Amino acid sequence: MAVADWLAALDRRAELRAKAGLTRRLHPRAAADGVVDLAGNDYLGLAAHPEVVAAAAQALAAYGLGATGSRLIRGSTEVHHTLEETLADWLGTDRALVFSSGYLANLGAVRALVRPRTLLISDAHNHASLIDGCRISGAETVVTPHADVAAVAAALAAAPGRPAVVVTESVFSVDGDLAPLARLHATAREHGALLLVDDAHALGVVGPDGAGAVAEAGLTGEPDVVVTATLSKALGGAGGVVAGPAEFVRHLVETARTFIYDTALPPVVAAGVQAAVGLARSGAGLRAELAERAAHAVGRLRAAGLDVSAADAAVVSITAPSPEAATAWATACRDRGVAVGCFRPPSTPDSRSRLRLTVSAGVPRADFEHALEVIVECAP
Amino acid sequence: MAVADWLAALDRRAELRAKAGLTRRLHPRAAADGVVDLAGNDYLGLAAHPEVVAAAAQALAAYGLGATGSRLIRGSTEVHHTLEETLADWLGTDRALVFSSGYLANLGAVRALVRPRTLLISDAHNHASLIDGCRISGAETVVTPHADVAAVAAALAAAPGRPAVVVTESVFSVDGDLAPLARLHATAREHGALLLVDDAHALGVVGPDGAGAVAEAGLTGEPDVVVTATLSKALGGAGGVVAGPAEFVRHLVETARTFIYDTALPPVVAAGVQAAVGLARSGAGLRAELAERAAHAVGRLRAAGLDVSAADAAVVSITAPSPEAATAWATACRDRGVAVGCFRPPSTPDSRSRLRLTVSAGVPRADFEHALEVIVECAP
Ligand SMILES: Cc1ncc(COP(=O)(O)O)c(C=O)c1O
Ligand SMILES: Cc1ncc(COP(=O)(O)O)c(C=O)c1O
Repeated sequence: MAVADWLAALDRRAELRAKAGLTRRLHPRAAADGVVDLAGNDYLGLAAHPEVVAAAAQALAAYGLGATGSRLIRGSTEVHHTLEETLADWLGTDRALVFSSGYLANLGAVRALVRPRTLLISDAHNHASLIDGCRISGAETVVTPHADVAAVAAALAAAPGRPAVVVTESVFSVDGDLAPLARLHATAREHGALLLVDDAHALGVVGPDGAGAVAEAGLTGEPDVVVTATLSKALGGAGGVVAGPAEFVRHLVETARTFIYDTALPPVVAAGVQAAVGLARSGAGLRAELAERAAHAVGRLRAAGLDVSAADAAVVSITAPSPEAATAWATACRDRGVAVGCFRPPSTPDSRSRLRLTVSAGVPRADFEHALEVIVECAP
Repeated sequence: MAVADWLAALDRRAELRAKAGLTRRLHPRAAADGVVDLAGNDYLGLAAHPEVVAAAAQALAAYGLGATGSRLIRGSTEVHHTLEETLADWLGTDRALVFSSGYLANLGAVRALVRPRTLLISDAHNHASLIDGCRISGAETVVTPHADVAAVAAALAAAPGRPAVVVTESVFSVDGDLAPLARLHATAREHGALLLVDDAHALGVVGPDGAGAVAEAGLTGEPDVVVTATLSKALGGAGGVVAGPAEFVRHLVETARTFIYDTALPPVVAAGVQAAVGLARSGAGLRAELAERAAHAVGRLRAAGLDVSAADAAVVSITAPSPEAATAWATACRDRGVAVGCFRPPSTPDSRSRLRLTVSAGVPRADFEHALEVIVECAP
């Protein structure tokens, strides 16, 4: 009875989503599907890089598959340790701590920054994991309009004497635009607030030696800045990282629930990411290629009359007239062998639907050019 | 100034923890550290099983390291798809959905079960990920005393007409005891409530073909039961799973934030777990060995006068007189080449500290016997 009600209610909600063009379906892919990938986040093409695969294979043979426990029990291997030292060195922080995902890293980091009476100030376009981090922390959260430094300043000014944390992405995942990090930091510091930056889409892609947007903004090693990132995008693997002052990282090790009560990242993944960091750091040529391609994509798509975001890194977003149109557009591209992201509410921070393209140095240039033409030809 | 305050406050909290014997430290291990592992969760010894490693290596070569995107974008591979079908078949549910961790699976599952006015009824010994799931869902949550079916019934009776979900582990992670699943289910059903069971420490270890404690309790495929588990313990890998009615799994695919906004489990891990499921299903001999060893460990440790939990699966818990004593005990064991878990507040559901031993079929029998003697000899 109650069960039938429950399942019927779920069905009704699925029907409502379907009517609104918001159905989501899984499309499993084969290993070599011949598709031109303008949807994934493997920006530097490192996921299948021979050095990454070889390093991963070696750790797989040495350690087996899983880490067999949480980081504080049996899950910390020398591979994790080395990776953390390398990441801290790259990001220019005292210490870095690896989590099993960027999502859990964000949940842990936001929560650990919250003290009694803390005010969180969260950008309206922030990623779900940051939003959930604010929520799970239990702290009062003010959502400020996107990239609006004045609104952040006003929120800080309205809470004098309270601990505060400004929470933002650097390169925003949906539209690919860059947060005004230097100004956000100056504003935060003026009010004695901390700044948490999720550098997920910037790490490896922008900044000196690819060290990310925090480094690019000149904020490396600032003691009031905490950086989070995922190891699953430009680094081609999986996992997350939180980097910052030693005291804060120690605090995470000893108190962060999503660190303590979670099985460690498999050593095979950590080892592959370790190799990817080396390639990313020395990947200036790849980054130049990425920047050039992103600018080219924006130019080509705008020339075709499409409404295209500024591409500050490797994400390009194109407005679609409706969720249905976005789905049809993405499907038409896929039918012609081009994978693009299709973002519809509630996955977009406003009510607009979009195609989301990613630029990857791993895609052959000719395929990339061809894919842009396919996108233009399939436009509604 | 504010920064100095922040770091000083973190330091003070670290000092307080140190004074209370609650410091936590990372101990990175080498690949072949020669330690007898009575701390990890690789219950069946599958993490380094040649078939698991070979399957993982093959997927690594075929797909590269990372999934390169979220499940709904580029992250779903045929490996994920096959694994989901296999898990659904094993668990006897309509469908199963793989998450990147058991933690994120629990956050997603609890939240997705919450409708307006839902009451969550959560066992006092539940895992952090279930507690956080309740918290992030925003639903009213009643915490009932551990394994207390009457308290669950009373909580349900006190909320007539409201949707309710009873949330429990099956084999509890800290003490290794088994929840009264059949009675919990009968109580839930009587009140039209749903039952969410986290089978993390039972999957592969108990039940017909190792299908877990839900199967063992005769609840396979019940439409008012949702099962979660991690792929990181008996299956030797990483990742999480939610299994249940097709309508519910569809609901997760289309709405669960920790599924949608998270990079997919790396194909290399999914492929290794796929092989591990095959070995676990046919692992009756391993399970018999586990049960025998767990009983033997309890007997030996009790004979030495220690306060030992009942071991319903492969987790054995021994009371320690204080956090400091627990740490010293675990350290003494480690110095003699035996790894054991050391659980202190706030990681224990009561204020007691414990050593936590796990039994693994992957540890040679003689080493296991020796480790028990070391634990006895190092006892405070
Ligand atoms: C901005 C941002 N932060 C965090 C995450 C989560 O990282 P992960 O996929 O490693 O969980 C993502 C994407 O997945 C992201 O785009
Ligand atoms: C009972 C229980 N549920 C969930 C989890 C989380 O699973 P995972 O480590 O895959 O995140 C764990 C342990 O890690 C656990 O013991």
